[in-house]
Amino acid sequence: MSDTRVQLQALQAFITRAMQALGLPDDDAATVGRLMAQADLQGSDGHGVIRLPQYARRILAGGVNTRPTIRVAQERAATALIDGDNGMGHLVMQRATEMAIEKARTCGMAWVGSQFSNHAGPASLYARMPLAHDMIGLYFAVGNANHLPPWGGLDMLLSTNPIAVAVPALHEAPIVLDMATTVAAYGKVKAKAQRGEMMPEGWMMDRKGQPLLDPKRSEEGFLMPIGGYKGYGLSLVVGLLAGTLNGAAMGKDVIDFNHDDASVTNTGQAIAVIDPAAFGDVQDFKARVDELIRDIRNSERMPGVERIWLPGEQSEAKRQAYLRDGIALAPALMQQLDKVAAQLKVPTLLETAQGV
Amino acid sequence: MSDTRVQLQALQAFITRAMQALGLPDDDAATVGRLMAQADLQGSDGHGVIRLPQYARRILAGGVNTRPTIRVAQERAATALIDGDNGMGHLVMQRATEMAIEKARTCGMAWVGSQFSNHAGPASLYARMPLAHDMIGLYFAVGNANHLPPWGGLDMLLSTNPIAVAVPALHEAPIVLDMATTVAAYGKVKAKAQRGEMMPEGWMMDRKGQPLLDPKRSEEGFLMPIGGYKGYGLSLVVGLLAGTLNGAAMGKDVIDFNHDDASVTNTGQAIAVIDPAAFGDVQDFKARVDELIRDIRNSERMPGVERIWLPGEQSEAKRQAYLRDGIALAPALMQQLDKVAAQLKVPTLLETAQGV
Repeated sequence: MSDTRVQLQALQAFITRAMQALGLPDDDAATVGRLMAQADLQGSDGHGVIRLPQYARRILAGGVNTRPTIRVAQERAATALIDGDNGMGHLVMQRATEMAIEKARTCGMAWVGSQFSNHAGPASLYARMPLAHDMIGLYFAVGNANHLPPWGGLDMLLSTNPIAVAVPALHEAPIVLDMATTVAAYGKVKAKAQRGEMMPEGWMMDRKGQPLLDPKRSEEGFLMPIGGYKGYGLSLVVGLLAGTLNGAAMGKDVIDFNHDDASVTNTGQAIAVIDPAAFGDVQDFKARVDELIRDIRNSERMPGVERIWLPGEQSEAKRQAYLRDGIALAPALMQQLDKVAAQLKVPTLLETAQGV
Repeated sequence: MSDTRVQLQALQAFITRAMQALGLPDDDAATVGRLMAQADLQGSDGHGVIRLPQYARRILAGGVNTRPTIRVAQERAATALIDGDNGMGHLVMQRATEMAIEKARTCGMAWVGSQFSNHAGPASLYARMPLAHDMIGLYFAVGNANHLPPWGGLDMLLSTNPIAVAVPALHEAPIVLDMATTVAAYGKVKAKAQRGEMMPEGWMMDRKGQPLLDPKRSEEGFLMPIGGYKGYGLSLVVGLLAGTLNGAAMGKDVIDFNHDDASVTNTGQAIAVIDPAAFGDVQDFKARVDELIRDIRNSERMPGVERIWLPGEQSEAKRQAYLRDGIALAPALMQQLDKVAAQLKVPTLLETAQGV
């Protein structure tokens, strides 16, 4: 069976309806629907609608607050700590990012952290938001399940703790780096499992240090950090900045949300926003970014390499293709979404698509 | 021949005298001497006194301004851009870090970038400075020679662009990550060459993609990024934040200071400082860092692993050992330092040590 293609608007409407049925207020349901569909649109297929069954399970188990009072717990001129009141992470981090953009406008830069947040989708969703204001975004998060031990160790104390950085360009597409500090994100492992594919060597190892290739056996091993001890260090400092600093879960306090639907995760994230206008002329800056992009793209290539990609460029290409042709969703995922629709008594995704 | 051991004070005094002889004002010479010796003390042996011959060569060739007017070129409440006037990078980044600490005290966090700076030693020197104020430091820099092509390319458009993050703890030593975005920093390649040792596989490759092991042939190849395309992306965004944003050199504008002593490098760096007090109680935060450190240290270990290290812990152990036993300097380095002393007509390091 081949992938199903659905238009962005249909996917967004379907998720919004599901979130309404799960008890979110209309505005919040629409925000979550929009952000989750954006994740699929940019090819972040481990972090978009694939998470809907899990989100629904958590909400129905009482693990997520559908009517949170998201509030500012701490504030200084260039910083804030947002208490998400265990609401959907998308709502918490959208609020945090808007606040960071406003603060950066006056202070030159800002840093807003979250506590009592939840999984919020791909890191680049939030790092990209300041781009519309000609600003730079940096995002850090504590992953929602520990799959990484410290270097040399076996206790699962760390997660994929991702970093995203988005930098505006002038005529070129922005540079958007979005990376787990592990070789592969756990969402990619899940996507491989759902598609029935094996993982490449180097993604995971078992407890004896042997390569683990079957994503269905992922519980038996751990993810590998990038660059060995360096990736371990990166994952740790991202966790300190996004989790420990915010009074959010880190280390042994992280709830494995793949096995626990009911406990409050106390997820921590952080968004930093830099206004290039605080460092000089913004147009000049963006022109320099363009020049760098072109120098890199036009670099002499190694034998066999057809094209040199900038970070975010393949995602941008996917966005354009998916806008034109619809977003590709695997058969197994479509079946899961049908089940969720039946459970929540909302139209299926295909029914929604026909109605849009 | 074995390594020579010298006390911190002697090394600091020797470098300070050399910098005075090179034309730096006494205060500035003392600052550079102190920071360079601190680099050796913490085991950053590619970034301490090993750089003195090169710094001297650059200053004598007119490539560095010994009497700079370091000034604030742009300023907002939480940001600044420092114009280093082509002074020694240590002076520029010490000033930038002091400013960032002051701004973070009121704004909660701050970000200060530099332009027209120069090589400033190891990244952790500056990331560590906020620790004395119970604050977190993050440091980013554009390396002073391009040894890294974009992923799949051959043009040397990127450098080792390092990241350092320092986080205070309560009773434990702080967590200090200091890493090049390449598998090895170029300073480590130089140190291997000077010690006559071969490099491990994975540090460098030649233009055909074959492993390059002889550090004396380093000009024939390039450094490898950590995690493949991820390390390329990290190096790029660090360069955008530390270089392009500041109007400093990045990409093809980077001067290779190993082959050019006279040109202004327009080096860019950035220091960010976060005050944990803006996010909650500082003692509570530091206690949570301690707890995380202990959980990691006490993790079950893989077979054959004797100890799990935290980032910065080995450096801290070296600092304690070198304070007690003296800093170890290789014979080839001692010979080079003797030559510099003779050229500058200052006492040698050993003469300085006997006089201290």
